[in-house]
Amino acid sequence: MSIKIGIYGYGNLGRGVELAVAQNPDMTAVGVFTRRAPETVKTLTGVPVFAADDALKMQDKIDVMIICGGSATDLPKQTPYLAQYFNVVDSFDTHAKIPQHVAAVQAAAERAKKTAIVSAGWDPGMFSIARSYACSILPDGKDYTFWGKGVSQGHSDAVRRIDGVADARSYTIPMPDALNAVRGGATPDLTTAQKHERECFVVAKDGADLERIEREIKTMPNYFADYHTTVHFISAAEMQANHSGLPHGGAVIRNGFTGVQKQNEHVVEFSLKLGSNPEFTASVLAACARAVCRFHAKGEYGCKTMLDVPPVYLSATERDELIATLL
Amino acid sequence: MSIKIGIYGYGNLGRGVELAVAQNPDMTAVGVFTRRAPETVKTLTGVPVFAADDALKMQDKIDVMIICGGSATDLPKQTPYLAQYFNVVDSFDTHAKIPQHVAAVQAAAERAKKTAIVSAGWDPGMFSIARSYACSILPDGKDYTFWGKGVSQGHSDAVRRIDGVADARSYTIPMPDALNAVRGGATPDLTTAQKHERECFVVAKDGADLERIEREIKTMPNYFADYHTTVHFISAAEMQANHSGLPHGGAVIRNGFTGVQKQNEHVVEFSLKLGSNPEFTASVLAACARAVCRFHAKGEYGCKTMLDVPPVYLSATERDELIATLL
Repeated sequence: MSIKIGIYGYGNLGRGVELAVAQNPDMTAVGVFTRRAPETVKTLTGVPVFAADDALKMQDKIDVMIICGGSATDLPKQTPYLAQYFNVVDSFDTHAKIPQHVAAVQAAAERAKKTAIVSAGWDPGMFSIARSYACSILPDGKDYTFWGKGVSQGHSDAVRRIDGVADARSYTIPMPDALNAVRGGATPDLTTAQKHERECFVVAKDGADLERIEREIKTMPNYFADYHTTVHFISAAEMQANHSGLPHGGAVIRNGFTGVQKQNEHVVEFSLKLGSNPEFTASVLAACARAVCRFHAKGEYGCKTMLDVPPVYLSATERDELIATLL
Repeated sequence: MSIKIGIYGYGNLGRGVELAVAQNPDMTAVGVFTRRAPETVKTLTGVPVFAADDALKMQDKIDVMIICGGSATDLPKQTPYLAQYFNVVDSFDTHAKIPQHVAAVQAAAERAKKTAIVSAGWDPGMFSIARSYACSILPDGKDYTFWGKGVSQGHSDAVRRIDGVADARSYTIPMPDALNAVRGGATPDLTTAQKHERECFVVAKDGADLERIEREIKTMPNYFADYHTTVHFISAAEMQANHSGLPHGGAVIRNGFTGVQKQNEHVVEFSLKLGSNPEFTASVLAACARAVCRFHAKGEYGCKTMLDVPPVYLSATERDELIATLL
């Protein structure tokens, strides 16, 4: 029996979910729900489009609603609201506000006997799981998260807001020396700025003052000022040719110690090189939709995170077969 | 309230469990159980030693028995037997026989309302989990497991059985070209022998025929004949100085594809560099003992594997704090 998926929001992430659902034989996308006029939206694989306001009419046709809004303003409202009517999955990624998001969704879902998984994806999500496993196994040790190489959309937007900038892409790149030291088992104290550098590709408007733009980028507080930042001015054609993708990735590394004198060193690493950040995140959300169905079928309601999900719940393969083939 | 741990068997793995329990503030080792004469066994941290036959007398003093026997002959008997009386954890690692081991332990534990986690460690264990997550998220893709660089105890034993060999250590080493190709996103078809080479360090007995020993190693079926194998003859002193540890590790890599034309490539990697194979395995078993207690407290009896364990169950940290700090 196919899992019936609704896709709420149809930007990069929503399109990624549509494609991910198509790659999973045990799922079917029954509808995309958009705040735009439905007739103006054409889906990649022909999934029908409905107005977001009509979602509640389709409660009995949807097993899990995957909510693909933004974390800043959409998800804090949408997920608790929709969890009153649907099993839901989201990718809420404002780390500092996750506890209050979990609490809000928990209240709504528990009352409605629905199941939610929130803050799924790769960070939060797979990286969180990697941190949790490694800390649980090696209590004496130190954790590192490196992000990149990848496009930081927030930083790209910040550069685009500078006067004279037509388009921009900002990459986060792990500092090779820091990454190699940690991979080699060292446990230095490193700030985020000591672990990463930033590289910006900028298309300037005609006649813009390039020196001023570069200075404004490099001195921008929070975003760039603390980082080693490189700025390249390129043509619009070059931007389109070489920087139109949304790659990302990174590594979670824990260096831990065991033995009578803590003399034995262990390096545990989980790393990702993602050709498309939104499509990978969407693929995680699709697997989580499967887990939501399994929790719900067992009467486990309320708000879960990926830390609460047994790995077997995410898999389309039966447990016996997983044990025989993967374990 | 401290989790009371029994350690059944006291070789390298049992000693590792003793040390791992000492690193976890929420656990106490209440006894080591040995088939040797208890008065001849001295523990690393002063844990009391009992005869294995007296274990059943201590049922009410032990929350989880961690069984540290060998997979060939000990665990197939010990784990189903002890699961009638204790919650148990083991590291049964004969991959082909895991399903029947799970079935035997399930029957015993379910009847006795005990909880077991079997085949825990890193492979099976953390590597299995890594394979399962990556396959669930990226259904279109290909998996690779590389082992090493590390000491293969089975291969070392095989070399030691050759006439004229006083001592031997065999390392499994991933082939750099194969590993780098897969890390770069390639999806070649590779046999185990195409992914790994073997390096042997041999202490020969006085007057032994070194050429014959080298030939016997390199032509040994199953163990070495299919692999590129290098043999070094060294002194007993050099063996002691440079090859007395039990390092191991490896990498599980899945290369998967998403997108309308499957044009976006993703590389998911989980890797381990372990200073001590038995101490890391033991650290996983200790975390699994915590998970066993949580399952048991919820009335979830029977035989689990690490694929069934929510990550949060392995952690000494409360769920709310994990969500606030790690997610």
